[in-house]
Amino acid sequence: MIQFEIPPVSRVLAAALRHKIDQKTKPLGALGKLEQIAVEVGLIQNTLTPALNQPIIMVFAGDHGIVRERVSPYPQEVTMQMVMNFLNGGAAINVFSRQHSIRLKIVDAGVNYQFTPHPELVNAKIDYGTRNFLVEPAMTEAQCAAAINQGAFLVRQEALNGCNTIGFGEMGIGNTSSATLIMSQLCGIPVAECVGRGTGLDDAGLAHKRHVLEQAASRHTNDPTPLSVLATFGGFEIAMMTGAMLQAAQSGMVLLIDGFIVSAALLVAAKLCPTVLDYCVFSHRSNEAGHQRLLEHLKAEPLMGLDMRLGEGTGAAVAYPLLVSAVNFLNEMASFESAGVSTQSTP
Amino acid sequence: MIQFEIPPVSRVLAAALRHKIDQKTKPLGALGKLEQIAVEVGLIQNTLTPALNQPIIMVFAGDHGIVRERVSPYPQEVTMQMVMNFLNGGAAINVFSRQHSIRLKIVDAGVNYQFTPHPELVNAKIDYGTRNFLVEPAMTEAQCAAAINQGAFLVRQEALNGCNTIGFGEMGIGNTSSATLIMSQLCGIPVAECVGRGTGLDDAGLAHKRHVLEQAASRHTNDPTPLSVLATFGGFEIAMMTGAMLQAAQSGMVLLIDGFIVSAALLVAAKLCPTVLDYCVFSHRSNEAGHQRLLEHLKAEPLMGLDMRLGEGTGAAVAYPLLVSAVNFLNEMASFESAGVSTQSTP
Repeated sequence: MIQFEIPPVSRVLAAALRHKIDQKTKPLGALGKLEQIAVEVGLIQNTLTPALNQPIIMVFAGDHGIVRERVSPYPQEVTMQMVMNFLNGGAAINVFSRQHSIRLKIVDAGVNYQFTPHPELVNAKIDYGTRNFLVEPAMTEAQCAAAINQGAFLVRQEALNGCNTIGFGEMGIGNTSSATLIMSQLCGIPVAECVGRGTGLDDAGLAHKRHVLEQAASRHTNDPTPLSVLATFGGFEIAMMTGAMLQAAQSGMVLLIDGFIVSAALLVAAKLCPTVLDYCVFSHRSNEAGHQRLLEHLKAEPLMGLDMRLGEGTGAAVAYPLLVSAVNFLNEMASFESAGVSTQSTP
Repeated sequence: MIQFEIPPVSRVLAAALRHKIDQKTKPLGALGKLEQIAVEVGLIQNTLTPALNQPIIMVFAGDHGIVRERVSPYPQEVTMQMVMNFLNGGAAINVFSRQHSIRLKIVDAGVNYQFTPHPELVNAKIDYGTRNFLVEPAMTEAQCAAAINQGAFLVRQEALNGCNTIGFGEMGIGNTSSATLIMSQLCGIPVAECVGRGTGLDDAGLAHKRHVLEQAASRHTNDPTPLSVLATFGGFEIAMMTGAMLQAAQSGMVLLIDGFIVSAALLVAAKLCPTVLDYCVFSHRSNEAGHQRLLEHLKAEPLMGLDMRLGEGTGAAVAYPLLVSAVNFLNEMASFESAGVSTQSTP
């Protein structure tokens, strides 16, 4: 597997960015979280005049052997059908990406279907879905490494083409089960406190899912290193996102993090390379039960809380205009001096 | 004064809107607050295919006699200077309106300055600032009625030109003092629980402001009808917004509500015509101390909590893309049937 070396974001310009923001024609701090984002993006790009270039959302799709245990109310073929929906422009992520002129790339990381080639679909299939981790590891170590490398490769191509802003999304029936176990193992939090309703389980379904996941956790008692946890419970789309995130940070991009599953992929990345977190903007707190706790573990404060729980990168897409607002006010607003506006009177 | 008759929003299409949303290719309810907004806008426009036409933000500016009591850390001329900043395109509201292609109109409701004509400035001046309400009522009843009528007139013009979506903003050094007393009187909440730091008072300044406002409240013990409270403590910009909001609702527009001062204007409007609330989308919870409580009084749940407290309509502008997202997903997303995606398996 590729070794990643992500430099921590330099804080050299922090004071200058703060000063620039405080000269803008507004009370000190009055733009709240947008000011924090402006500083963060300025630091990531190491400039007082940041720019979001060729923004993209990559949606990674994969299937999961664990669905045989009825952990989702939707059948597995929905993963494939939703990929087709993405390619036809009819899904929520299509609508929101169009709205904000964000390019969209769909990556087949491991869907249980042979797609015919399509200009917006990247064939990066590791296999036709993972194995059932109630019985055996979801993937081999070699598959896990291949997925990570492939994710990194795709992002490197984007970086070479001038993209510096990337949102992450995913599609995979069953993948809240993977994310739950990754979170539980790597955060040391009981499964019961990580598990949620996913696409909409009822109480009985949730209890069953929890039981299945607790059984699965007890059957794999190996060392919980990030990579072994990822290989044992992960989906191909999660592993590929992990690699994509590590490469994006190493390339100095701004990473826009979506909901529960994307955060689980980031958790693995952060356990491998904690400095990846320097490059992340957290878009929203999803309604999936474990997400709030996972965000706390990552010391992340999301921009929005819209009670969304759709995945696909929709939270990242909907939060993206806030990132633009942050950059724009930093670049475009007048200063007290340039606008001839009086500052606070000294008492 | 004009009499407003705002019909309650018909709920005839509620079930059909809900059904349309539930057929979209996503788990039930997975778009959270965006689904609520989609229903609300559909009901306001009484259609399954709503559209946001010619969106505008109107920024109402006025000066306040109470600033003589040193209730703000900024001098009064900042109101005028910020209006010039708006006209020159350098303020935060300019940046965010440009970003989202929202038209911006600046209304001089009562600034203490004689502006030279400017194509983007509406001269609706009632007077060169209000009187000092620590000593006497801020305005006469006739001035209050004139401001309300003028606000309604401006919005009627927009409605005639096809605009159906309006955000409200304000600028006026001292106007958190007005909003505090309006809230306190009309909600029956003590001044101390409504008052906040405004543009950034320190602890001593806040204590002084509170003292001044408590004194002012005790000097005007007349009947707290909405109009008398508005005339006694209001700013011209607040009264004009109240009229603008009532007319906007009567014209069937979607009203995008900003922060503390805009919410205080809406409070007056809602006391006059409660059905105005049917037409409102609440953009954000501002960091000004009283806003959360005021939102609760209005039974409003805002879309965002970005810790902003700038005014100008900036919260409305930054929340606007969420309104667009709500309308767009309703209009553009595929249904399970049209996309050939399986629904939940029956257990």
